[in-house]
Amino acid sequence: MAALSKVEIQQKLKDMQGWSHMGKALHKKYTLKSFMPAINLVNKIAAVAEKEAHHPDITINYNIVAISLSTHSEGGITQKDFDLARQIDQLASEHS
Amino acid sequence: MAALSKVEIQQKLKDMQGWSHMGKALHKKYTLKSFMPAINLVNKIAAVAEKEAHHPDITINYNIVAISLSTHSEGGITQKDFDLARQIDQLASEHS
Repeated sequence: MAALSKVEIQQKLKDMQGWSHMGKALHKKYTLKSFMPAINLVNKIAAVAEKEAHHPDITINYNIVAISLSTHSEGGITQKDFDLARQIDQLASEHS
Repeated sequence: MAALSKVEIQQKLKDMQGWSHMGKALHKKYTLKSFMPAINLVNKIAAVAEKEAHHPDITINYNIVAISLSTHSEGGITQKDFDLARQIDQLASEHS
């Protein structure tokens, strides 16, 4: 699965809500009601990430969960990152 | 609970393993075997943080859990941060 070009990434981002492209990763922040709901979302994301064997960087600042997705083996963003981004969006929408 | 001075912080850090003082926070990184052990440690830390009503910033990069502790209401590091740091160290040592 090859790294996508900047143009391909921008094209794919058009129909995705809240995701941005910075450096070699896709980024999004989810705002939850408080700390424990944030932790619960992280657990759901972790289960999917482990299943897909594709692990985002995750930062928790109280009620904010920041996700960073990249395919390190390809040195950039691949379709795998977009697929996981959509799955995380789905989890977050069920969660809120 | 007042913010500690730089001297007080340095003094307290002397007998703490792996913690450093940067900006207005105490920092430490824990290296786990893989992603799910890292998530499990985060869950244990989250439970203690919630109980203490004192929430560290947490970053997960695959098998590395980075903790940042600060008392925002005091604009710096307080005894509360050191107390939670020790509890997190305890959890991590039981966990590994």
